Amino acid sequence: MDLLDLLDIIGTFVFAISGALAAAEKRLDFFGTAFIAFITAVGGGTVRDLILGSYPLGWVKNIVYLNAIGIGFLCAILFRRYIISWRRTFSVFDTIGIGVFTVLGLQKALLLNVHPTIAVLMGMVSAVFGGVIRDTLCNEVPLIFHKEIYAMACLSGGVLFMILRFFDVNEPYVTISAVSLIIIIRFVAIRYQLQMRVWRYEEKK
Amino acid sequence: MDLLDLLDIIGTFVFAISGALAAAEKRLDFFGTAFIAFITAVGGGTVRDLILGSYPLGWVKNIVYLNAIGIGFLCAILFRRYIISWRRTFSVFDTIGIGVFTVLGLQKALLLNVHPTIAVLMGMVSAVFGGVIRDTLCNEVPLIFHKEIYAMACLSGGVLFMILRFFDVNEPYVTISAVSLIIIIRFVAIRYQLQMRVWRYEEKK
Amino acid sequence: MDLLDLLDIIGTFVFAISGALAAAEKRLDFFGTAFIAFITAVGGGTVRDLILGSYPLGWVKNIVYLNAIGIGFLCAILFRRYIISWRRTFSVFDTIGIGVFTVLGLQKALLLNVHPTIAVLMGMVSAVFGGVIRDTLCNEVPLIFHKEIYAMACLSGGVLFMILRFFDVNEPYVTISAVSLIIIIRFVAIRYQLQMRVWRYEEKK
Repeated sequence: MDLLDLLDIIGTFVFAISGALAAAEKRLDFFGTAFIAFITAVGGGTVRDLILGSYPLGWVKNIVYLNAIGIGFLCAILFRRYIISWRRTFSVFDTIGIGVFTVLGLQKALLLNVHPTIAVLMGMVSAVFGGVIRDTLCNEVPLIFHKEIYAMACLSGGVLFMILRFFDVNEPYVTISAVSLIIIIRFVAIRYQLQMRVWRYEEKK
Repeated sequence: MDLLDLLDIIGTFVFAISGALAAAEKRLDFFGTAFIAFITAVGGGTVRDLILGSYPLGWVKNIVYLNAIGIGFLCAILFRRYIISWRRTFSVFDTIGIGVFTVLGLQKALLLNVHPTIAVLMGMVSAVFGGVIRDTLCNEVPLIFHKEIYAMACLSGGVLFMILRFFDVNEPYVTISAVSLIIIIRFVAIRYQLQMRVWRYEEKK
Repeated sequence: MDLLDLLDIIGTFVFAISGALAAAEKRLDFFGTAFIAFITAVGGGTVRDLILGSYPLGWVKNIVYLNAIGIGFLCAILFRRYIISWRRTFSVFDTIGIGVFTVLGLQKALLLNVHPTIAVLMGMVSAVFGGVIRDTLCNEVPLIFHKEIYAMACLSGGVLFMILRFFDVNEPYVTISAVSLIIIIRFVAIRYQLQMRVWRYEEKK
């Protein structure tokens, strides 16, 4: 659980970097870039909490998320060249972030006693909606609507989580299995269909 | 009231189909299409409930809405050709859905003791905001901003509802009158200004 | 405080006009124009309140905001030519509106005991998010993402507010100083970088 919280913060940091890079690609200014980095990082969890009516929002309650975003934004600005050339490494963190966000979102929904299907949906929303808002604000059709593996990986992990939980598997194993499945699906998708791996800001060559 | 609930579910089903067809037109993938179908169907009610702070959201509380959307999505995928050629029939259901969503949204707002003008607005929001989010995510200026009859029909029905209610007309008559007015305005608009009837995915010929 | 409330209503009125003019520029119809005027005026405060979970929303509770928007919309329709030619004068009100929205948003957030950084962010969100939603619905990359002074002015005012408050300066002086700083930064930005002043509906010549 503590490890999940740490990964949640790291995921927020990584999502802020990926948001900032997407914004820089759109030639937004300094402020616009920070704004998009912020929305990409907290958008998914915020939409989930608004839907569930779960207040206060995580990033409003705990300032550490805002700090993680600020540091991520600075890293994106300062080390942009390096991050792009390390993007294979970076994508490992991005994928871990997706897995962690999905499971944390799902767990949060379950605490509120929603239907299992809703919980799985909320896990996916947590992981992907930041990117949906980022793309909409950048005036593009959201990336995940064209490249389904990203969201399908989250849904598969969520379903596995619910199945293992139904059979009373211990919580840590459930969590590790679900996060692992998401990561594996993503990596398999990346390896065998390279075009899905393509970064947003490279799609236009 | 029971009939209204049934019509609400049918409206959700029909809106999911119309969302899926709009998404297919934009060449979104399987996931993107399901996502847009979902947002089109629940977006209006969700925005209304977020504005009013009315938790839990209808589709979070009752899984039947999610099921209606899933079945609607499958119908859109499987029977796409038929739906498009039956679109005159289909538009009857779509229009009934708009009328029902308006009245249900208005009633929900009134239960929360808001100002009558706010209630009328919330009725319209319930009926049209799913389409606004659908168009925004599909990267288009929302359709209802160009073709006013759609929203004006909802507002007219809402105003009639409030007037009849003010004169203590029995609830069932108020509901039937308001829904009927919305349907009539829409059909008159369709008959006399055919271009307003045009389906989204045909506008570009 | 009473003066702030009055300025809040005037700010709502002015934002409705600026939203209506932006919508007219996009050739939206009567309804679409009213809708965009409404969203521009209440969008920022609504997003802030959704994030903070502060219900009921200001414009839902007090119908005066809806009236201010209605009158603003009518003024924009009726006096469009005059407003455009008076736009130097009009921008004074717009700028005052931004300052007032920032400080009111910040104060509302502080009442809910959030972290000072969150409060400053909420002040900025109150002032700029109406415009972000307006631009997104009009299918454009939000203006403030290209022209940073607008949002930076709000952030600077918010930071000054928190600093003066930390040193126990009297509330009225804190408020006046923060609003003044925002207005001054905006006017300096307008004077020395004229392109940032450019109105939305003139950018395309």
